[in-house]
Amino acid sequence: MKKRTFVTQKQIAKEAGVSQTLVSFVLNGSTEIAISDDTRQRVLDVAKELGYVPQAAAKSLVHGRSNNIGLVLVNPHYQVFRDPYIPNIITGLSNVVRSSDYRLMVEHINDYNGIMTIRHMLKSGEVAGIVMTNFQMAEQVAGPLIKEEYPIVLLEKPEGILAPAPSVGIDHFSGIRCATQHIISLGHERIACIAYGTPRDVHLHKRIKAFRDTITQAGLTFEDRYLRFGHYEPERGYLAMQSLLEETPRVTAVFGMNDLMALGAIRAILDAGLRVPEDIAVVGYDDMRFAEFINPALTTVRAPEVEQGQIAGKMLIDIIENNPISELQVMLETQLMLRASCGAA
Amino acid sequence: MKKRTFVTQKQIAKEAGVSQTLVSFVLNGSTEIAISDDTRQRVLDVAKELGYVPQAAAKSLVHGRSNNIGLVLVNPHYQVFRDPYIPNIITGLSNVVRSSDYRLMVEHINDYNGIMTIRHMLKSGEVAGIVMTNFQMAEQVAGPLIKEEYPIVLLEKPEGILAPAPSVGIDHFSGIRCATQHIISLGHERIACIAYGTPRDVHLHKRIKAFRDTITQAGLTFEDRYLRFGHYEPERGYLAMQSLLEETPRVTAVFGMNDLMALGAIRAILDAGLRVPEDIAVVGYDDMRFAEFINPALTTVRAPEVEQGQIAGKMLIDIIENNPISELQVMLETQLMLRASCGAA
Repeated sequence: MKKRTFVTQKQIAKEAGVSQTLVSFVLNGSTEIAISDDTRQRVLDVAKELGYVPQAAAKSLVHGRSNNIGLVLVNPHYQVFRDPYIPNIITGLSNVVRSSDYRLMVEHINDYNGIMTIRHMLKSGEVAGIVMTNFQMAEQVAGPLIKEEYPIVLLEKPEGILAPAPSVGIDHFSGIRCATQHIISLGHERIACIAYGTPRDVHLHKRIKAFRDTITQAGLTFEDRYLRFGHYEPERGYLAMQSLLEETPRVTAVFGMNDLMALGAIRAILDAGLRVPEDIAVVGYDDMRFAEFINPALTTVRAPEVEQGQIAGKMLIDIIENNPISELQVMLETQLMLRASCGAA
Repeated sequence: MKKRTFVTQKQIAKEAGVSQTLVSFVLNGSTEIAISDDTRQRVLDVAKELGYVPQAAAKSLVHGRSNNIGLVLVNPHYQVFRDPYIPNIITGLSNVVRSSDYRLMVEHINDYNGIMTIRHMLKSGEVAGIVMTNFQMAEQVAGPLIKEEYPIVLLEKPEGILAPAPSVGIDHFSGIRCATQHIISLGHERIACIAYGTPRDVHLHKRIKAFRDTITQAGLTFEDRYLRFGHYEPERGYLAMQSLLEETPRVTAVFGMNDLMALGAIRAILDAGLRVPEDIAVVGYDDMRFAEFINPALTTVRAPEVEQGQIAGKMLIDIIENNPISELQVMLETQLMLRASCGAA
């Protein structure tokens, strides 16, 4: 396959017998210099004849800004797209971006070079603005850019130096408290938690704190030995649950901080000859599509991720276009989905 | 938040006391006209002082092509990203694109205007090439573009006027035959199939043909009344299975053409008081992450989708850069994952 070549202004100039500068003035509709109607028409005729299309690059130079919106994924995981979170964000985002005549670029960074890339994309006008997942490196990445007033929307409530930044978050801590309170309300006193996240991840500690505070505020004792770390995979939930089953006295309920780990935990409980929820109640988090159909159906927490992407995209475009914005920091609520695995249904 | 403005060549010209044309010549390193070293240095100093960054748009004009790769999703579904297929493709694609210093744009089209958009993106140089999912509209979309020799890689073996187009496909028909043969080998004679796809979708008919041919080639009878349509949702698999349970004689095995429908089918069988696999064996397709952990674990077919995205990205970049390519049409194989739900494990 040969490489497609563009009709250039140089070719048009040659064909029309005028200078390239003049072609450029005509095609950009410039009024800076006087051009005779005849010459103007000749250039336009030749351009049409040769099949000239204004290059996007040239058009964005003329219009002064790019039509690209960047989704910046700040995450060390190669498998970032296998988690349903990012696909859900893209679903919401791409819907808004498309209907507003922008395009979506997806940029995945995981080191300092990545930060420089984003800075350059914004500074050079490659993207008009970015929506950014907000993990460990958020301050390093977004801090300087927000200070320089580039259009950025974060996908989490920002803190510290980022506190005033535009954001669309989901109140996961409230979701965790709600799930934990529900388990407590069913009469459980020994409740395990299978958390996920790397030790560097500040959100890991906040998630655990939300769980622990709910336990202690209910007058129960939070026990470290009922806490496990499982990352995102069902395999890890399975192993975490196996190890929890060795603790005496055994827990009567387990909260898996994502559905895949909760799924692995259920499997480990059944493989040990125990029943869910009769022997051990299980609650997950995410409401993935399988949650309602596994056996027993998984009680879990639904987070409005598609809506989050949609609202963030809308906010970013409003910022780029200088439209009025009613609320620069939005926080969305989660919803407890009651099913059989917790024993309440 | 104010809109960030760029330092323009005009500002540099004003500050350095030279013409804008001269600034442009200096910054683009042009040798077309003689510029004194003093003047050249003054322009560069002023540009540096003002924080000028060459615009991406300007750079891509100079270099003659874009650094953007487009992933074009031709699909009528709003929920295209909720299917794990596209996220898997993006995972593979973004990995290659990133390491080759390109950027990934995601464009989602579902009508004739969308086709025009893609054409314009290529023609205007907004993207250097595209990887395209290959559903109903493939011929209309890709046909003219491939004829015009734009760099395109299709994610399915092309047929008809597209037959010579570069492609990276997965041999799903072989996967379907393999799963069906496996069910037959376990001694089943009444085998249901829950298919998905719209009636317009030519692939739906090919998938059913692959199933039917395998049945008849084994000397069994294909019966229309054991065929159901379930789309992508577990809910539809559940309803399809409920209706299959009403047929007499009852089937002894069911092949769900994706895992989510197979999951719904299992649930319907259990809810009817029957056992999987003892009363009805179930086989799925996809090997989604839950498949191994549900109860019973789902026998299914794994398709190398991440690898497909990776190879397609590599092929597209090679085409764009005129690198030699050993194989312009690649077909990847699927793998049967034997677990408990079919009764063989």
